[in-house]
Amino acid sequence: VGEQARKSDPLPAAGSSRVDAEPAFQTPWMTIRRAWTTDEGGEAVWHYLDHPGCALVVPLLRDGSVLMLRQWRVSVSAWCWELPAGRIEPGESPEAAALRELAEESGGKAGRIEYLGSVFSSNGSSNEKIYSFAATGVDISRAYPDPAEQLVCHTMTTSEAMRMALAGEIDDGPSALAILWAHGRGLLR
Amino acid sequence: VGEQARKSDPLPAAGSSRVDAEPAFQTPWMTIRRAWTTDEGGEAVWHYLDHPGCALVVPLLRDGSVLMLRQWRVSVSAWCWELPAGRIEPGESPEAAALRELAEESGGKAGRIEYLGSVFSSNGSSNEKIYSFAATGVDISRAYPDPAEQLVCHTMTTSEAMRMALAGEIDDGPSALAILWAHGRGLLR
Repeated sequence: VGEQARKSDPLPAAGSSRVDAEPAFQTPWMTIRRAWTTDEGGEAVWHYLDHPGCALVVPLLRDGSVLMLRQWRVSVSAWCWELPAGRIEPGESPEAAALRELAEESGGKAGRIEYLGSVFSSNGSSNEKIYSFAATGVDISRAYPDPAEQLVCHTMTTSEAMRMALAGEIDDGPSALAILWAHGRGLLR
Repeated sequence: VGEQARKSDPLPAAGSSRVDAEPAFQTPWMTIRRAWTTDEGGEAVWHYLDHPGCALVVPLLRDGSVLMLRQWRVSVSAWCWELPAGRIEPGESPEAAALRELAEESGGKAGRIEYLGSVFSSNGSSNEKIYSFAATGVDISRAYPDPAEQLVCHTMTTSEAMRMALAGEIDDGPSALAILWAHGRGLLR
């Protein structure tokens, strides 16, 4: 047997770390930070993407269907199945960002919004945290996406959305997780 | 009503894009690329993290429990609940990477390994693809993690792992999704 710990065991002391005051790389949309850690093994350097966080929303329409996007992603040169989501603006709450992205990307207006949970999307190289919500009683009108974004709105049954999330057909991991969370809360009729 | 498309509708033509031959920023562990897209709106520039991809594994032990890690993440300065995972090395298959990370991070040896699915972790700023697997019949011996990594191995019941995944208590999104996928396949007894 190996060295399993119990959940109640105290955690080891984390090595001390400091982050450079100046970004290692910066554009208007991306900041890379350099961190230094020190432990018994000496000093090590790490780089990570310093991200403002992202809000994501599962839009549940009045007719019982789910709205999903197909969005062109430059990073992977592909059309991806995903949910409305985007960066949290300075001073904006995650919930306000979710409602704004719902309106911008899908033209949706929520009857009610419910927090589902949050996760780090890729904590080995980024501090991006995704805050996920379910919007219920959603009405759809005209979307007004950022002109630089290419996206197509789709509606589908909740059972089709669940099937896609379980089958790995939703290309975006945080979107697939949010659908499974909404299902776990009994929100997918 | 808005402009919902049907799944069978043809997708619009994606704007053309080209990627600079030289990285915009590079360290031994991180490459940032700059891409240029052109559409009716003109030219736009995008930066993204160019990642080799990651393999992740749900380790299901012979006694019916799940192995999970608590790992210190420099990017978020926190101990995170997550599963064994790591970068795919050049020339390595995702499955081989999953077995290697299982051995290195937990000292685990799988009886059988099964592909669960893949997702992009954060396609707005990275091309990282996560390939997830379930390892069954796992035996645990001594782990030999990278000395720069700080992690603690835990075992827990599958129902506790499911509870944590649904409650948002697993800090790493891809790990939570993989547990829900393994449950969907009937692999969590």
